[in-house]
Amino acid sequence: MGAAALMAAPALAGSVVSAAGRKGTADQRATAAPRLNISFQEGTAPGENLAQKFDWMEAHGVTGFEPGGKNLGARVAELKNLLRGRNIKVTAICAGFEGFILAEDPAVKAAFDSSMRDIIVAAGELGSVGVIMVPAFNGQKPCRPHTLETREFLCEEMGKLGEFALQHGTTAILEPLNRREAFYLRQVGDGAAIARDSGSKGVTCMGDFWHMSEEASDYGALWSADGYLSHVHIASRGRRIMPGEDGELDNYVDGFRALKEMNYEGWVSFECGTRGEREQTVTAALELMREQWARA
Amino acid sequence: MGAAALMAAPALAGSVVSAAGRKGTADQRATAAPRLNISFQEGTAPGENLAQKFDWMEAHGVTGFEPGGKNLGARVAELKNLLRGRNIKVTAICAGFEGFILAEDPAVKAAFDSSMRDIIVAAGELGSVGVIMVPAFNGQKPCRPHTLETREFLCEEMGKLGEFALQHGTTAILEPLNRREAFYLRQVGDGAAIARDSGSKGVTCMGDFWHMSEEASDYGALWSADGYLSHVHIASRGRRIMPGEDGELDNYVDGFRALKEMNYEGWVSFECGTRGEREQTVTAALELMREQWARA
Repeated sequence: MGAAALMAAPALAGSVVSAAGRKGTADQRATAAPRLNISFQEGTAPGENLAQKFDWMEAHGVTGFEPGGKNLGARVAELKNLLRGRNIKVTAICAGFEGFILAEDPAVKAAFDSSMRDIIVAAGELGSVGVIMVPAFNGQKPCRPHTLETREFLCEEMGKLGEFALQHGTTAILEPLNRREAFYLRQVGDGAAIARDSGSKGVTCMGDFWHMSEEASDYGALWSADGYLSHVHIASRGRRIMPGEDGELDNYVDGFRALKEMNYEGWVSFECGTRGEREQTVTAALELMREQWARA
Repeated sequence: MGAAALMAAPALAGSVVSAAGRKGTADQRATAAPRLNISFQEGTAPGENLAQKFDWMEAHGVTGFEPGGKNLGARVAELKNLLRGRNIKVTAICAGFEGFILAEDPAVKAAFDSSMRDIIVAAGELGSVGVIMVPAFNGQKPCRPHTLETREFLCEEMGKLGEFALQHGTTAILEPLNRREAFYLRQVGDGAAIARDSGSKGVTCMGDFWHMSEEASDYGALWSADGYLSHVHIASRGRRIMPGEDGELDNYVDGFRALKEMNYEGWVSFECGTRGEREQTVTAALELMREQWARA
């Protein structure tokens, strides 16, 4: 882990949107490949508490932390304190809001608006790249139908949310999920187009290698978000556990090549469990990712 | 037009599916860039009849012809006769069927099934790469709703259609349109994923530079169909007229680079009108495309 542990965490705060990759087109490919910035969610690292987990992450060159959004406002001081002096930065915030943006019930929509904005404020205080959101999970009903009018509504609402996020130095991140979890938004390119059509630079999107089973090409899917991609999730590709636990299925090279060519300077963040002994499977996952990134 | 006029039409017939680009991943980029194969619809070239139009196309290095699908079966002999001895091949067939595949009315669905299969048979006789279809235009109602169940239905129906097409040496080509024309299928990556999930190699998809206003990245959109892309449409990007008539808007370089890197050996086919004098605007469009292809 030597060299990796020496890597400095990239400075995202204050340049959230440019870090999101709004750098232009394929014409402007980076000549020097960016490094792989790895982030963990709260449960990823071995350790009995966050301090122990952060120790483990620093020792293994993991420089990003993606907390859950639930009650984030009440945790800002605690998290800042725990991270003080460490080579770890807050990356994205994983959801945690109530309600959903495509709810037909005005009270459910209002709960989303209010709780999402609370999390955005806290995300800004933590220097986060953005707050991850899903427009509607399949189980969330009644939901606006998947029509042209609903897309216009979503773009308009996202535009307002994005401007609010920008005021707080962060973004709202649209996460496409596979169709079994959330039919409404399934592909990275669709998230990018909604971000564009929202009219706000405070709306970005992300890719998730697990959910990208919806895509015919990892490479094409990530390039489809050129200029709008602010975050990436990773997991094994058969059972959503640690990269490597599903063997040959866990090939990220095609996607990593897209990220390198796009000069993606954001994070690749673990969102997965494990079926093995955590110390061993997480360590192996880091090795696999670094090897594939180097090869991509 | 000298060099261009000397180019031989690529041999698509008999290798329709491999010509569709199922060549693998970004790992396998072509070292020698493919040439630009240009195709015209029936109304594109100057000329008072098809024979005159074909003369013009041959003189200008246009080696592909995309006829409409309406009554195609009755035109097979006539088209074969007109093309005999020429350096022009039939490329895709542009729609022409009745009904639509997502119709809720069984009679409308049956009209699609029957008329689409008739066109597929004729397409096979003409050596066509495939018959272009849209699952549902916005105006076609009643239409199955945009849900997970409808996607499963579509994949299953496309699978049957694809196998029928394969038996006739051709494919069914899904065309994503912009949301103002057809909300159901809007992005190239979505068409590719439906083609994949149909389970039949007789289902392919296409990109259309006009409709690709739905995409945040031409480059990403086309790469998203890697292995499934069988056809491409082109038009100007402001008013859907000849490439070049909308000035600076008519930049295809990013998309052309994707096609070259993907080793796309299919056709780029005109689907557009003109506001100018046809002889002049079509000639200028060919020059613009060739210059941008060379630069991509």
